[in-house]
Amino acid sequence: MDKKSITIGLVGGSGKMGQWFRRFFTAAGYSVEIAGRKTALTPVELARKSRVLVVTVPIAVTCATIKELGPYLAKDALIMDLTSLKKEPVEAMLKYSGAEVIGTHPLFGPRERSLKGKNIVLCPARGQRWLPWLKDLFQSYGGHLEIMSPDEHDRAMGIVQGLVHTAHMAMGMTVAGSKFPLSTLGSVATPNFKKKLQQVRRLFSQDPTLYAQMLFYNPYVLPILESYMDDLHRLVSAVREKETAAVEKVFAGVRLYIKSGK
Amino acid sequence: MDKKSITIGLVGGSGKMGQWFRRFFTAAGYSVEIAGRKTALTPVELARKSRVLVVTVPIAVTCATIKELGPYLAKDALIMDLTSLKKEPVEAMLKYSGAEVIGTHPLFGPRERSLKGKNIVLCPARGQRWLPWLKDLFQSYGGHLEIMSPDEHDRAMGIVQGLVHTAHMAMGMTVAGSKFPLSTLGSVATPNFKKKLQQVRRLFSQDPTLYAQMLFYNPYVLPILESYMDDLHRLVSAVREKETAAVEKVFAGVRLYIKSGK
Repeated sequence: MDKKSITIGLVGGSGKMGQWFRRFFTAAGYSVEIAGRKTALTPVELARKSRVLVVTVPIAVTCATIKELGPYLAKDALIMDLTSLKKEPVEAMLKYSGAEVIGTHPLFGPRERSLKGKNIVLCPARGQRWLPWLKDLFQSYGGHLEIMSPDEHDRAMGIVQGLVHTAHMAMGMTVAGSKFPLSTLGSVATPNFKKKLQQVRRLFSQDPTLYAQMLFYNPYVLPILESYMDDLHRLVSAVREKETAAVEKVFAGVRLYIKSGK
Repeated sequence: MDKKSITIGLVGGSGKMGQWFRRFFTAAGYSVEIAGRKTALTPVELARKSRVLVVTVPIAVTCATIKELGPYLAKDALIMDLTSLKKEPVEAMLKYSGAEVIGTHPLFGPRERSLKGKNIVLCPARGQRWLPWLKDLFQSYGGHLEIMSPDEHDRAMGIVQGLVHTAHMAMGMTVAGSKFPLSTLGSVATPNFKKKLQQVRRLFSQDPTLYAQMLFYNPYVLPILESYMDDLHRLVSAVREKETAAVEKVFAGVRLYIKSGK
């Protein structure tokens, strides 16, 4: 295969993840072109000439972008998106293009140097030709691939992103509300709490709109957050009533889950 | 100073943290003796002969142990406890012994190999003689000391231990309740979520009674948990109503706190 003859197009490729994949595909030997609001090449022109079109625009405009560009893709081309949601974008790609479709979610941020040891979810939705190519490419750089349905992916992200980010955001709010100086908390921190403070600080250095979109667009986020509030209520009641047995019961239940998952 | 002539007594020294400090004081060159329910030496005999008595029994029996042994300590001796609470134990040490008193909280677990880079809170409550000795000893092994009042310590632990442990426990409950196999979650994990799963798993490998006691005995835990539930409620409402502005406001507030704490 002459890699250079395969143009990989990145729509919205000036964003951080877009730039990451631009470097990645370029290093792998492919011709990479980008198009966006500020490029001379228009997204439509890019869609026409790409063998692989990667949609890497914000979640809020992903489906509209797919709708706009899908019709210009060749039937033997591949269209993929990189958002942290899969159901709606995959449905849009199937509906608005005739190309092969692989919903893709790289589970890492743009600061990572390489794919090594990083998880990537693939939701192959149409076609057989490009999937082996994409798997080989990611695996050859050490990525761990997980094949899932879009629905299963979104349910999992309700936990991996929705629950964890919300819990960290609430923790940031509570710590800020406590008025305890951050420097004092640092000097009374356990190794565990030091990590937690780092995670919370990192979250709050990110773009709030991106986090809001991750929470709002995935329909599985709200139910998992409601479960979390229920579980928290049970624990807080146990603390209020000093019920050791309730805490022991919680430990027993979660340990059983952890054990069964090995 | 002839270190060997100074007997450091550990009451309840067969527990994990007791063993850790037995090794630490021994390596530092002191004579260390322990007494507990299973030793030939009784706690009272140990209290009589110790220049430094370290109370390292479970929180639930700490004050009773201090009450029992305090009267046997020499006036120029030192009594210290190692619990994660300071107000009640320090009050008990002041009340039931005539010795110097330093409430002590090592902010690390028994798995740590050395003091290097670890935080220790000291709450000196009576006497001038032993404090420089204890500070020098901990600092010479790389420990970071923080001097606080017992009340300030307990308020800080409401966050460092109460809030963080409860949030992790609730997360364990919610993840278990989701019925998602742990192995699937691992293969769709971000680097951040991998760390989170490790923290949650580590928590649930500990003793539930110890965690229950940390939550129940510190009066500052319940109010901070109630704040956390309020903050979480606000976030969940923002998710339900898809209010991006509310998420942006949260980010702005927490960022201001982080900035002011530098």
